[in-house]
Amino acid sequence: MKRGFGSDNHSGISPEVLEAIAQANNGHALAYGDDEYSGMTRKLFKQQFGEAAEVYPVFNGTGANTLCIDAMVRSHEAVICAETAHINVDECGSIQRVVGCRLLPVPTPEGKLTPELIRTQMHGFGFQHHSQPKVISITQPTELGTLYTLEEIRAIADLAHAHNMFLHMDGARLANAAVALGKSFMEITTGIGVDALSFGGTKNGLMTGESVVILNPALNNNFLYRRKQAMQLCSKMRFMAVQFQAYFKNDLWRRNAEHSNRMAQLLYESVKGLPQVKVVYPVQANAVFAQLPRRIWQQLQQHYFFYEWDESADIVRWMCSFDTTEEDIAAFAETLEKIITNNNINN
Amino acid sequence: MKRGFGSDNHSGISPEVLEAIAQANNGHALAYGDDEYSGMTRKLFKQQFGEAAEVYPVFNGTGANTLCIDAMVRSHEAVICAETAHINVDECGSIQRVVGCRLLPVPTPEGKLTPELIRTQMHGFGFQHHSQPKVISITQPTELGTLYTLEEIRAIADLAHAHNMFLHMDGARLANAAVALGKSFMEITTGIGVDALSFGGTKNGLMTGESVVILNPALNNNFLYRRKQAMQLCSKMRFMAVQFQAYFKNDLWRRNAEHSNRMAQLLYESVKGLPQVKVVYPVQANAVFAQLPRRIWQQLQQHYFFYEWDESADIVRWMCSFDTTEEDIAAFAETLEKIITNNNINN
Amino acid sequence: MKRGFGSDNHSGISPEVLEAIAQANNGHALAYGDDEYSGMTRKLFKQQFGEAAEVYPVFNGTGANTLCIDAMVRSHEAVICAETAHINVDECGSIQRVVGCRLLPVPTPEGKLTPELIRTQMHGFGFQHHSQPKVISITQPTELGTLYTLEEIRAIADLAHAHNMFLHMDGARLANAAVALGKSFMEITTGIGVDALSFGGTKNGLMTGESVVILNPALNNNFLYRRKQAMQLCSKMRFMAVQFQAYFKNDLWRRNAEHSNRMAQLLYESVKGLPQVKVVYPVQANAVFAQLPRRIWQQLQQHYFFYEWDESADIVRWMCSFDTTEEDIAAFAETLEKIITNNNINN
Amino acid sequence: MKRGFGSDNHSGISPEVLEAIAQANNGHALAYGDDEYSGMTRKLFKQQFGEAAEVYPVFNGTGANTLCIDAMVRSHEAVICAETAHINVDECGSIQRVVGCRLLPVPTPEGKLTPELIRTQMHGFGFQHHSQPKVISITQPTELGTLYTLEEIRAIADLAHAHNMFLHMDGARLANAAVALGKSFMEITTGIGVDALSFGGTKNGLMTGESVVILNPALNNNFLYRRKQAMQLCSKMRFMAVQFQAYFKNDLWRRNAEHSNRMAQLLYESVKGLPQVKVVYPVQANAVFAQLPRRIWQQLQQHYFFYEWDESADIVRWMCSFDTTEEDIAAFAETLEKIITNNNINN
Repeated sequence: MKRGFGSDNHSGISPEVLEAIAQANNGHALAYGDDEYSGMTRKLFKQQFGEAAEVYPVFNGTGANTLCIDAMVRSHEAVICAETAHINVDECGSIQRVVGCRLLPVPTPEGKLTPELIRTQMHGFGFQHHSQPKVISITQPTELGTLYTLEEIRAIADLAHAHNMFLHMDGARLANAAVALGKSFMEITTGIGVDALSFGGTKNGLMTGESVVILNPALNNNFLYRRKQAMQLCSKMRFMAVQFQAYFKNDLWRRNAEHSNRMAQLLYESVKGLPQVKVVYPVQANAVFAQLPRRIWQQLQQHYFFYEWDESADIVRWMCSFDTTEEDIAAFAETLEKIITNNNINN
Repeated sequence: MKRGFGSDNHSGISPEVLEAIAQANNGHALAYGDDEYSGMTRKLFKQQFGEAAEVYPVFNGTGANTLCIDAMVRSHEAVICAETAHINVDECGSIQRVVGCRLLPVPTPEGKLTPELIRTQMHGFGFQHHSQPKVISITQPTELGTLYTLEEIRAIADLAHAHNMFLHMDGARLANAAVALGKSFMEITTGIGVDALSFGGTKNGLMTGESVVILNPALNNNFLYRRKQAMQLCSKMRFMAVQFQAYFKNDLWRRNAEHSNRMAQLLYESVKGLPQVKVVYPVQANAVFAQLPRRIWQQLQQHYFFYEWDESADIVRWMCSFDTTEEDIAAFAETLEKIITNNNINN
Repeated sequence: MKRGFGSDNHSGISPEVLEAIAQANNGHALAYGDDEYSGMTRKLFKQQFGEAAEVYPVFNGTGANTLCIDAMVRSHEAVICAETAHINVDECGSIQRVVGCRLLPVPTPEGKLTPELIRTQMHGFGFQHHSQPKVISITQPTELGTLYTLEEIRAIADLAHAHNMFLHMDGARLANAAVALGKSFMEITTGIGVDALSFGGTKNGLMTGESVVILNPALNNNFLYRRKQAMQLCSKMRFMAVQFQAYFKNDLWRRNAEHSNRMAQLLYESVKGLPQVKVVYPVQANAVFAQLPRRIWQQLQQHYFFYEWDESADIVRWMCSFDTTEEDIAAFAETLEKIITNNNINN
Repeated sequence: MKRGFGSDNHSGISPEVLEAIAQANNGHALAYGDDEYSGMTRKLFKQQFGEAAEVYPVFNGTGANTLCIDAMVRSHEAVICAETAHINVDECGSIQRVVGCRLLPVPTPEGKLTPELIRTQMHGFGFQHHSQPKVISITQPTELGTLYTLEEIRAIADLAHAHNMFLHMDGARLANAAVALGKSFMEITTGIGVDALSFGGTKNGLMTGESVVILNPALNNNFLYRRKQAMQLCSKMRFMAVQFQAYFKNDLWRRNAEHSNRMAQLLYESVKGLPQVKVVYPVQANAVFAQLPRRIWQQLQQHYFFYEWDESADIVRWMCSFDTTEEDIAAFAETLEKIITNNNINN
């Protein structure tokens, strides 16, 4: 398949990660997380997120999000989230089926919730007919490639905690946020009041590796059973655990994320000046969202796979990944420019 | 960790499988099963199970079993299974939570259902208070390491179909059954009336690779959505798909399974003559179940990890895997013999 | 408790209904719907809704709505509804828990969906990550006391059916719609393409009596089991069945609904001219929604129980019922007028 | 329908109960349990079960059982019950669907669990693959019409509590147990360690009235939301509440239950001497289970409706109710005797 900008999970495995898997393929190990590799990984997460942090590797982002929510609500409670949140639109209703609770989606500008927006859904407390708001879920960076500042998240965390609610962070691309903000994982999660985190690695160089990280010890109950029952317990767990070890070692996560963020900036620079192309959201992580005429982006899709994001507004999404090259971007921008030129000539 | 007989998922990855993963780590590929590797894997499964077979890779055996059952029942229906079935005792209630239906477990000798045993649960059809029996689920080889003959399964399939029910096979170790029976995958599944199959690879040399194989086309509806919603859709699917390619290539599955079965025979031969040790089920696949005095097996556990299977009867389970060696067995048997001897002297 | 306008389920039982219960209290009858009263009720529903209609009495409106939806979707599918729909905001997440599917709520003016509004949620067909739209659910009359015309519903039904979707009608107050439109039950449901109906009686004079009415025979599968499993099967069903018989007999439903609709008009006439009181939605059934200053309606609540409907807009809801009297309205309006006058004097 | 012995829910409404409903049909009342009738009923339950008891009326026994269990477990936990328990065999899988947990049924003699039988399922604590036993559920009187002594229940409660588990009692016919044991409701529930109770009234003279009674205050969390979400919240609750008031007033419950128990004794006396008829369980409440030749009971079914209980053993169930008369029994016994005689002559 041609290299492109369809998604950061179109990329492969970082060589260091594959090497770690190979090295762990050595003799026998206990299954289901009772092995030494898993023990070491638990320690590494505590280093990254604080001593109270407990990590539970799961298979994919949907599993991480659903099990985070499962740890925080019962079915009569509800989760306030952005309308664009992955849990709302991209998981085929996993939370509804597995947790059985309501989501309370809120339309947002640029994918970011604010205390003011959240308050529109904070009502009906104590009214038996109304799902009780219990969690605020934010995505960092957002589905639109934008970032919350630490202060913005702190304010949301405070709002949640003032109402006896929890703050969930979908960090499928958390590394991209950390490097963009120039902060550690701990500073952008535990340090500002996040209670439970979906921590992603697959989009940033792992083969299969996401995890639930419980930061608030009050939530750390029964998780082993909940994960198993939800079909998210890996048998040969060592091979998932070592991926995270490689991820943290020598800051692989940082190098990969810095690269993909930088590539997104380069892509942005390469297309922003093209006629009829408008980048519609700030490029703060590894995504570029552009608005351009339908006939243009449809011709571009004949050369590159990428997703139309908003059909009604002709907005498309281009993602950079750890293995995106400057040549990839040059070729892409050149192709786009040619298509635009040809269309203008033909008009 | 010391090599041993705790479980066949304590083993690692077959070198051919790891090599296939490395080779697939080459450039970009579409995610979620739309890649070329996945397309090829779908073809390979049709070769193994027949043209109508549709494979859906999932993350683990619990996912495969639960999604097979999900494809065959709605929540008001029920699944007849052996009391010892993995879906009944080892999945922390996944089917109850995700599918929401009843299991109707039946006590069995040696883990095998028979038409006669099944009929004890085939009643209440049409009675609105009673969960409607809809699936018979068998495990091949069974949880107790025993095998159904083809004729036995055919009879169960006929019984199911005569009552408008489906036959599910939990084939977490199907390769071990195939080599023990000297038959192809198709002959022991599609050919004798199995409607949906949980096909396992992880216990026989894959890193992470199980799958749902829908054999009865009438059941092949909506599976993509059901899998996604149940959190079993892998993003970088190519790396799961190539594992199955390596598995089928040059009959790796067969070589691995023949080896683990043979090792189990050797283990059986090595312990059956020891005083106070009784092998309690026929050794027909890669498991040996032995009854021996509690003080003996508890001392043995100080040297080797393995599971106590039936506390009340002092039965333990020893599993062989594709990487078990003759030396492993010799050392294990020797250790066991020493313990027995010492205990006898001390008595 | 003081008589008022809090809800139409604050009213009691129509005398004819209570009498019917008493008359059915005569000897023994089979339970669970196998009795003669239930058989007769099934016939009456066929008279009202057409020969293909199958009625299944349930305990409450939430049960009727949830089981209607359950008959039309599986958990990976979705229901498009108005943001104000009872299924969305007033059922504490029953559908999410019991059916496990997503709702796709759409903001509406006056509580009414339109094809244009519905189309904003009709996308993602065939995309495995997206809950598949399968049902459009409308409420007639709406939660805001407004009515769809027959043509409006026909257009929505056509849209649904053109996309292989179903049309659900929440008819918790269907009698009020029928009399307001001057049509039979059949004309406003079966006749214009409704596939499944939640038919309410409790708010219009029954003691406990709602029902699921399956109008599209293709949906009439397994309902007895689904109802039982969802805990909505009444044991002494005869006493629910006879309530519906009394409801249809001598058009009790019509007389009750005509009365409550007329009382709502009278209430509207009595308050619309008051200073600072603005009736915000057309009064087309038995509800009056008014916007008035917070200090006014809060003082009024010291005399009468009623619900604040929209806190941010100071909108309150006043419901009339079959037993509302002209005196009730006169006293209420007088009280309100006095409060307004006093407030104005004090300002 | 001919009067008979099919079920105690084939009987009607006690006149006192119907009268109470009629008297409550007076003006307006708040809905959903916020009315004065409901307040009074809550007090009455405290009188009957102790100050800590909290009653939550629900619609039927399946709702009461499922919501009791829901208050005590999460989906990864499990409920130990008799194989014959209503929750296991007669509710079409409600607990599996609504709670999502496993039941661990145990075969019993005469429908009664014992600590020894229960212990066969008390294992796997702390093992993530195994549903964690959390509740023991007993039925009093049992589904087979037998009774636990207070000492027997106390021993089961102690076993439960020693393992941090809860004791649930399905008291669908609790009044029959109370009168048979000559004890108060409190003595046979709260006093001996029951944590949550399904309290039935419908089978003993109510129209529609079951309730969850939470006896252990630690379990009294979120029940209002859980009941609403599970579709068990009655809107015109006053009419359910007054049924319980009538039930407790002047010991109606006791008079009704004493009568039905006495009728069962009379029935037992009337049939036990008949040739070929064997009463197979002690008649301790209002049920008689008899074993008799198939051709005999099938001929009897041409005159009377009743359930075959165990097809393989030719056991049938005959229930007495509060409105059973001595004439009913005489006629029934006479019919049975004639059938037996005729059969003997014809043989």
